[in-house]
Amino acid sequence: MLLSPKTDQLIKALQVLPGVGPKSAQRMVLHLLERNRQGGLQLAAAVQDCLQSVDHCARCRVFTEEPVCRLCKDPRRNAKTLCVVEAPGDLMAVEQAGSYDGRYFVLMGRLSPIDGIGPAELGIPQLLKIIEEDAVTEVILATGSTVEGEATAYYISEQLKSSPVQVSRIAHGIPMGGELEYVDGNTLAHALAGRQVIEND
Amino acid sequence: MLLSPKTDQLIKALQVLPGVGPKSAQRMVLHLLERNRQGGLQLAAAVQDCLQSVDHCARCRVFTEEPVCRLCKDPRRNAKTLCVVEAPGDLMAVEQAGSYDGRYFVLMGRLSPIDGIGPAELGIPQLLKIIEEDAVTEVILATGSTVEGEATAYYISEQLKSSPVQVSRIAHGIPMGGELEYVDGNTLAHALAGRQVIEND
Repeated sequence: MLLSPKTDQLIKALQVLPGVGPKSAQRMVLHLLERNRQGGLQLAAAVQDCLQSVDHCARCRVFTEEPVCRLCKDPRRNAKTLCVVEAPGDLMAVEQAGSYDGRYFVLMGRLSPIDGIGPAELGIPQLLKIIEEDAVTEVILATGSTVEGEATAYYISEQLKSSPVQVSRIAHGIPMGGELEYVDGNTLAHALAGRQVIEND
Repeated sequence: MLLSPKTDQLIKALQVLPGVGPKSAQRMVLHLLERNRQGGLQLAAAVQDCLQSVDHCARCRVFTEEPVCRLCKDPRRNAKTLCVVEAPGDLMAVEQAGSYDGRYFVLMGRLSPIDGIGPAELGIPQLLKIIEEDAVTEVILATGSTVEGEATAYYISEQLKSSPVQVSRIAHGIPMGGELEYVDGNTLAHALAGRQVIEND
């Protein structure tokens, strides 16, 4: 025991947060007790409120406390383009990039038969239904470039083979500002295979 | 807005924690929602419980939910030695070092007249009373080696001039494993001034 049972308990409880170990949890507890009890109580209320009311969007499966999320309800978003991602964090990353104005579908995972995660768990039947009902014209597969991510993208593209929708995969290659010398061979191989012709007018 | 009002609110609330910015707060929210809602609710309860019940020990001023903390109540601790530190985190650091078996007094700050922090705010009258009542034989001043920390140590030592108690200051010098080459000049000057004679038998 360091100080008292209740501070110890909080030090332990804070370690459910990713990236928080015993030392930083200790620092957080002392910070809240010494400098920001009000902020700490607001944090407790926000955690409770968020975890008790946030569920999945009925349409795209992202996290939201409403039945349908704001992106699915937004009439300014292009409903004809659908970007398929693995997780809400991926959706947020694409949103923050700021160049995409279509809609999303969040798989909440990737195909992994060994863990019992098949098409049904990823909501793929629901995805196919949305594509048909909304007459989506392009599906962008933005799953990760891991083995499972690639397999998931491949599976979805196979399901859409007979449909008129255009299916695309996000590009893999050299990150912006990346130096060729320091890029791994796999990425470089993808960047070469995905080369695009420069058309000068 | 990223996902929904309640997730945004939690991302903001988490940033009261030291070392947590928008990116890591976002990661924490997604982690709690996706993987550990139960742990998140326990965290909320622990924050509330700790912040509402933890106050200062009536004797040494450290944080505790009991009237007097476990260190002050522990009969195995040597009540004749008193270590004076600036903050609860300092006390925890000395405790974790594991070589000290005396008691503590936590100033909860350091002398800083410009911020209105004088001897009364630091509980120095209470410290002097404890020293007298418990017939403390040694007071170890373990305040920081900043200007304010040094001034605080000096002020307390001045108050104890006429008392029979022995007053000492923790050593400043080269950290263990530290290379002379990389130690700053100020530390090196302290290390030289504080040199100790090696007595070979």
